[in-house]
Amino acid sequence: MILTSLLVASALRPIGHIETIFQSKFGTPRQGGLAPDSRATLTLDPAAVGGDAAGALDGLSQYSHVWLIWGFHLHADAPARAKISPPILRGRKVGVFATRAPFRPNPFGLTLVGLDRVDGGTLHLSGVDLVSGSPVYDIKPYLAEWDAPRDPALVGQAGSAVSSLAADQQALRVVVSDSARAGIRGLGLARGGLIEDEAQLERVLTQCLASDPRPVYRWRKQQREGGAAEYDLNLDSICARCRFEEDGSVTVVSVAAAGS
Amino acid sequence: MILTSLLVASALRPIGHIETIFQSKFGTPRQGGLAPDSRATLTLDPAAVGGDAAGALDGLSQYSHVWLIWGFHLHADAPARAKISPPILRGRKVGVFATRAPFRPNPFGLTLVGLDRVDGGTLHLSGVDLVSGSPVYDIKPYLAEWDAPRDPALVGQAGSAVSSLAADQQALRVVVSDSARAGIRGLGLARGGLIEDEAQLERVLTQCLASDPRPVYRWRKQQREGGAAEYDLNLDSICARCRFEEDGSVTVVSVAAAGS
Repeated sequence: MILTSLLVASALRPIGHIETIFQSKFGTPRQGGLAPDSRATLTLDPAAVGGDAAGALDGLSQYSHVWLIWGFHLHADAPARAKISPPILRGRKVGVFATRAPFRPNPFGLTLVGLDRVDGGTLHLSGVDLVSGSPVYDIKPYLAEWDAPRDPALVGQAGSAVSSLAADQQALRVVVSDSARAGIRGLGLARGGLIEDEAQLERVLTQCLASDPRPVYRWRKQQREGGAAEYDLNLDSICARCRFEEDGSVTVVSVAAAGS
Repeated sequence: MILTSLLVASALRPIGHIETIFQSKFGTPRQGGLAPDSRATLTLDPAAVGGDAAGALDGLSQYSHVWLIWGFHLHADAPARAKISPPILRGRKVGVFATRAPFRPNPFGLTLVGLDRVDGGTLHLSGVDLVSGSPVYDIKPYLAEWDAPRDPALVGQAGSAVSSLAADQQALRVVVSDSARAGIRGLGLARGGLIEDEAQLERVLTQCLASDPRPVYRWRKQQREGGAAEYDLNLDSICARCRFEEDGSVTVVSVAAAGS
């Protein structure tokens, strides 16, 4: 058994690295469904599939959604711990396997994403929660008949402390300021990029901010000390300055090209 | 990027090896949901989770279903190919990522299983499609709000050639013979094992046989030559002799303890 496990381990190699709008952990949503307007492209490494990237995707375009099994590469060196404090529990500890958090014995992420289009050896995806550059290990079609419990009522009965605690956290109200809107207009967004127009950018900014991306320790500090706190949210090549207000809302103060 | 990917690869180690009723590839269902009465246990390796296996599962029992990310260890040495012929397509080739078949660049399986009970560092599972001894790399709770498409109508519209071809294949009619029933009564099944009683064994035999476990090349040979073909199906420590009839039914001829 040990031997075969090692074989699997030694065979592990990315089939490609995803390109998403998320440039850092901050602002990357905790689930793909939280940011349905986020887009991404994944170009297969032909060497991983016998030289024929387009062939490896043949037939996939008939599916609307796919699973990605991918690596939390920014968390890969974390020690193996039995219990962790996922951001959503704000300090409470829970067994690592009762969460979808990145700090896990094998740092794999699992995300159901929308498959917008297949173009040769490239997938065009939406509703992602991967930091740009994350290695992807496998793609599987979503099969509604097997990928959902036979008896959905069971899921409801079981409930979940994590889910109900998460549900208690109200979504933040997001306000896009006039100066941010002026900045967005000045970006010169155009079709073909991961963010194609002003409306999509406003939607994705709102989606990323509403679920409160603040790290727990900084959220706690702000709760303790009061006042507002400002953060830079980097999406694609855009930097949005955001102010988390004391009243639980968040204002997009300004938007500009990153590095400008 | 290459460096961080290697870090992920080198960190890969099983968190445990699953014990299921499936002793070989033959008869192991292609999806866990095909055999809801199949049961399994997964005991965590404490060393993979900082020494505290029970802690790593704390909070998980509130979920009804979990995802397993696991290794097709019997397929780990297959070369990377772009297109494959999954059994369900009976010879037609399709891109590897348009299938859930085991021959993949990284031979990971993804299965939604029922979580019947957590007992210390052990999970009691049902509806599995893993051969006994398969390495498991990750467990994640099933979150209905993120693990299904927001708009189920989309999935329906998209359709799928693989799914519709599979749907065309009628389930085999399974007949448990009187002598097989006598054999089952003689097994002395008892509570506490993965197969606890005669009714569960009959159900799981029927579930495994109905979806036609015959390898494609042997199915094709039988189609060509006509006549019946017999196979041994090993479940847990039980051997069932099964005859695939010419009329598309399958008869469980006899059942006995394996090796007897």
